[in-house]
Amino acid sequence: MKNVKEFNQLNIKDIPLHEIQIDDSFWNNYRALLKSTVIPYQYDALNDRIPDAEPSYSVYNFRVTAGELEGPHKGAIFQDSDVAKWLEAVGYLLTYEHDEELEKKADDLIDLIARAQQPDGYLNTYYIIEEPDKRWTNLYDCHELYCAGHMIEAAVSYYKATGKNKLLEVVCRYADLINEVFGTEEGKLKGYPGHPEIELALVKLYQATGNKKYLDLSKYFVDQRGQKPNYFVEEWEKRGRTLDKSSVFKQPNLYYGQSFAPVREQEVATGHSVRAVYLYSAMADLARITNDEELKTACQRLWNNITQKQMYITGGIGSTEIGEAFTFDYDLPNDTMYCETCASVGLTFMAKRMLALDLNSQYADIIEKELFNIIIESMALDGKHYFYVNPLEVWPEASEKDPRRKHVKETRQKWFGVSCCPPNVARLLGSLGDYIYTVTDKAVYAHLYIGGHINVNFEDANIKINQSSKLPWKGESSFELEMNQAANFAFAFRIPAWISGKFKVLVNGKDVQYVAENGYALVERQWNNGDKIELEMPMAIKMMRANSKVQTDAGKVAIQRGPLVYCVEEHDNGKNLSALLIDPKTEWKEKEEDFQSLGKIIAIQADGYKDNIEHDQLYFTFEDSVQQIKIKAIPYFIWGNRGIGEMRIWLRY
Amino acid sequence: MKNVKEFNQLNIKDIPLHEIQIDDSFWNNYRALLKSTVIPYQYDALNDRIPDAEPSYSVYNFRVTAGELEGPHKGAIFQDSDVAKWLEAVGYLLTYEHDEELEKKADDLIDLIARAQQPDGYLNTYYIIEEPDKRWTNLYDCHELYCAGHMIEAAVSYYKATGKNKLLEVVCRYADLINEVFGTEEGKLKGYPGHPEIELALVKLYQATGNKKYLDLSKYFVDQRGQKPNYFVEEWEKRGRTLDKSSVFKQPNLYYGQSFAPVREQEVATGHSVRAVYLYSAMADLARITNDEELKTACQRLWNNITQKQMYITGGIGSTEIGEAFTFDYDLPNDTMYCETCASVGLTFMAKRMLALDLNSQYADIIEKELFNIIIESMALDGKHYFYVNPLEVWPEASEKDPRRKHVKETRQKWFGVSCCPPNVARLLGSLGDYIYTVTDKAVYAHLYIGGHINVNFEDANIKINQSSKLPWKGESSFELEMNQAANFAFAFRIPAWISGKFKVLVNGKDVQYVAENGYALVERQWNNGDKIELEMPMAIKMMRANSKVQTDAGKVAIQRGPLVYCVEEHDNGKNLSALLIDPKTEWKEKEEDFQSLGKIIAIQADGYKDNIEHDQLYFTFEDSVQQIKIKAIPYFIWGNRGIGEMRIWLRY
Repeated sequence: MKNVKEFNQLNIKDIPLHEIQIDDSFWNNYRALLKSTVIPYQYDALNDRIPDAEPSYSVYNFRVTAGELEGPHKGAIFQDSDVAKWLEAVGYLLTYEHDEELEKKADDLIDLIARAQQPDGYLNTYYIIEEPDKRWTNLYDCHELYCAGHMIEAAVSYYKATGKNKLLEVVCRYADLINEVFGTEEGKLKGYPGHPEIELALVKLYQATGNKKYLDLSKYFVDQRGQKPNYFVEEWEKRGRTLDKSSVFKQPNLYYGQSFAPVREQEVATGHSVRAVYLYSAMADLARITNDEELKTACQRLWNNITQKQMYITGGIGSTEIGEAFTFDYDLPNDTMYCETCASVGLTFMAKRMLALDLNSQYADIIEKELFNIIIESMALDGKHYFYVNPLEVWPEASEKDPRRKHVKETRQKWFGVSCCPPNVARLLGSLGDYIYTVTDKAVYAHLYIGGHINVNFEDANIKINQSSKLPWKGESSFELEMNQAANFAFAFRIPAWISGKFKVLVNGKDVQYVAENGYALVERQWNNGDKIELEMPMAIKMMRANSKVQTDAGKVAIQRGPLVYCVEEHDNGKNLSALLIDPKTEWKEKEEDFQSLGKIIAIQADGYKDNIEHDQLYFTFEDSVQQIKIKAIPYFIWGNRGIGEMRIWLRY
Repeated sequence: MKNVKEFNQLNIKDIPLHEIQIDDSFWNNYRALLKSTVIPYQYDALNDRIPDAEPSYSVYNFRVTAGELEGPHKGAIFQDSDVAKWLEAVGYLLTYEHDEELEKKADDLIDLIARAQQPDGYLNTYYIIEEPDKRWTNLYDCHELYCAGHMIEAAVSYYKATGKNKLLEVVCRYADLINEVFGTEEGKLKGYPGHPEIELALVKLYQATGNKKYLDLSKYFVDQRGQKPNYFVEEWEKRGRTLDKSSVFKQPNLYYGQSFAPVREQEVATGHSVRAVYLYSAMADLARITNDEELKTACQRLWNNITQKQMYITGGIGSTEIGEAFTFDYDLPNDTMYCETCASVGLTFMAKRMLALDLNSQYADIIEKELFNIIIESMALDGKHYFYVNPLEVWPEASEKDPRRKHVKETRQKWFGVSCCPPNVARLLGSLGDYIYTVTDKAVYAHLYIGGHINVNFEDANIKINQSSKLPWKGESSFELEMNQAANFAFAFRIPAWISGKFKVLVNGKDVQYVAENGYALVERQWNNGDKIELEMPMAIKMMRANSKVQTDAGKVAIQRGPLVYCVEEHDNGKNLSALLIDPKTEWKEKEEDFQSLGKIIAIQADGYKDNIEHDQLYFTFEDSVQQIKIKAIPYFIWGNRGIGEMRIWLRY
């Protein structure tokens, strides 16, 4: 592992993932599930061994490419990426849990991948099997660079975890080839990926190898995007105006893949939302590493646009299924939205990179929102079923019968033909440790309240910080310091956006003053071995409203408690949740209850109303008749674990 | 014109259209527009003479077919039907207004059509020009029988209006050919149209010619639909599983064209809504003429399903753009609906035929609803711009930027590539007289309150009934009788569903008792020359609610005054209509005002509220702050005549 000296305005220290251990009352369950079920299950899925699920063909395609099997390429053109994402997640897992058998599986898979690589370094099973003479002729549709990016991320993760560099060498050879093919120099293709991903991966490859050409290649891809004449249009003309059969639109849609203008000129988040946030993540990396203020401004502008105008209260992004895309400011329909899991994973990536540019709690607030509301929600409690689309409102009859809503599944699926989301969740859960702290040369920032420990040092002081958290159920977290000697540094604690009351910091039982700065409570002092810090974050049930420009949420409230968005389900409240009414000033009661494998959760209950009009007619003169009922809400992340039924986040008031 | 003796449980007399004249303070404007603008404008459109509008190519295709021009077939595969619908409308127009120049144009067009007809009677410009050996090979997609149906309707209308039978002979030869090709007999095709239309047209051809084979052919098409094995699937297999390039789905969708089951077994209205109601119209005709109780029950079941579970308050039908189709019971989204003008025209056709089966005011209520809310709304006040889709909610930014709503136009269009709707409106307005009365052997039923006169006779009494109406602005209508002698008969007046108070009948100034029966007020007595009947129909502004199963209308009210649905527009109420709130008990004030070519209209106004939350944040803790404002609503049928802006029917309360 090279020690790359990057530009770093905030003097952030690089803390390797293995220096951060998670041991948390809430997250241990998910991390254990990752190891016991998610990773093994996804391995079976990649090998087409899940009964009644759509086959993946990912491993099969590598076997064919390596000459071990005969047959056509199967599955989507980008199936290679699922293997890569699984390997990446395995790398993270091996960082915190030794597992010989799993490592053997991964090594075997890496050997297979190496055997599939072509003599010149090329590595894409679709093109090798089906169209070896058509490499790089359809960047718009065909995901070659996207798959390369994921393989690079896998290689870096696996190398960091195990020190084994076989896959790293494979991807370096591939990246070297790509570097020869692409660029503004004479004789090179001036292209860039239809689906951004390699840009952020090349930054990781640069960081792992210290080889600056990978950074330059990333910068090239980012800056070349949207230049005139448009490469995707030129490429399409060259192909005789054909698109791949999988193509969503009838001609290149320059908004879909954010190539309508150079990235620095883009004002609002546009197009396919996963592509967008992967691209913006790389932009944020490059802005920091290359100290590019213009790029930083573009990142902030796009971030603000997403989080202040195009994001659902759950953290979901992508308002339409058509192109799986952003639409326009304040257009946030709850029943037909897309809110792809991968897009939330990608926004989490972006948030982490924005934090490295600008230590402001707004980014960490979104990371927390995504983790608690989309990432874990997308997976069933059994770890074997997943949502691709994470709705805010489900009416099962509509999902079944209305073609506009058929993408809105009322229950989590075993696996998908296009299965980008499940391994994306796995790699995010696996690398969760990376999101908790930022350590600078003079401060420790705690972004997330997740128990475990981190090892840091300030000058000669080696410090082990042990965190213990009661989130998401209770707004309490504490830190104990184990130190070989006293040290002066600032400890900064995120003041969560959801807080209801004063954020309190107690050191060794005593309330201390802190400096509130950019959403953090900074306590700068001499810290001693055995010091104990306790945080009190009042957590109340809040009724939330959307900006009145969000037309679809007019007259509605959503319920939040701490970082958790709540929802109502048919299971607790009967059919027709649209008939429910709540008084926003009502008193909610918390109700601790057992919820399957999760143990205790906090459900909430209040008096509410339900329209009580029994009428055969479709339309009739106004009558206002409601009955008083009890309304019960549960955290959104566990909806759909008790059978199929209606679900709704925004309720009438 | 043959005098066909049809089965007729209610002993309804056939009153030719020319015996019913319209002279009405409201409708004269539209009828004059039809003559002065709509018909000439549509003629220009058919001849591709409208600048900046999508060309029709309808007449061009006939020219090519007749050998007068060279070139390929252009436009949609069913363009012939636009010529036919225009001719049909011209027929109606000539019934009530002599116009030599127009008749000459129509005669010339008919001559052209006759020249385009093939020696064996075949007449479809697409197949003749492009695929002469592929006739009848793709009934599912290719609209041959649909176009034939419209040409038959045109021929009957023109023959009834002018007595000229040239086009009638053309279509009889064509129908004879069709009768040789289709049927259950050995050697015939067991097919039926993908788009129903010829079924109801063949009934008209039977009525005009007295030739029962046309009735039998109609019955064959209706009863063959949905039989097993499914013809569309067999046909598709025979074609090597190909569909026309225009096809909406990837394989035959048996719901789309109502062929999933025999029509008598169909429980709910399904699929493409225009196809559905054209089919049901023919079913209602056949149920009556052939005294088929089972078919009548099916019609009633489908009618009830539409009007009680799948119809918008405007009378619009078709909840989704995908397949321009019904979805499922109570699924009535206001922003993405289809509500095609043609579907409302078709439901009006069906309603008229249901009335002939069952003299119940519910059918006439829907006719009135369609006329006042969709039919005239679909056309701009200039008669030159049309809606294809008639939305209940418009947000121009969404129409522009959200692909799910791009079919929802925020302003009426000049012409459409697929331009079924404008001529459909023309033929309905032209034949409006047919919808006002039903005359049986012992009663006159007044269904619609539209001024003008009708000539009827009971035994030796010849009676001219002169109606004068103040609808839709005032609930008053009066009738004066001119009679050569006194006569006994029942006069039945529809008691409108929208009435607010007691329906009163005054005869010669005196309140009379009536028998309320099936929604009609029956006054049976001896009527004398000079008798004057006055109807008082209290008309108040009503707040309407939707059945609580309509999830999208929960917590909302719509405003109705008499037959008119009202809406609010940005023009009067500012941006963001979703922020408006009304108290359903509020006092509305009527406000007579001038509205362009319409003269006086009644707008309404009341105190209301608007969310008054200025917040930069997308989501924030609940605040309830509203400001009092005036809300102004106008009749829905005139929305969009004052520039582009938001519009909304259902408002929060």
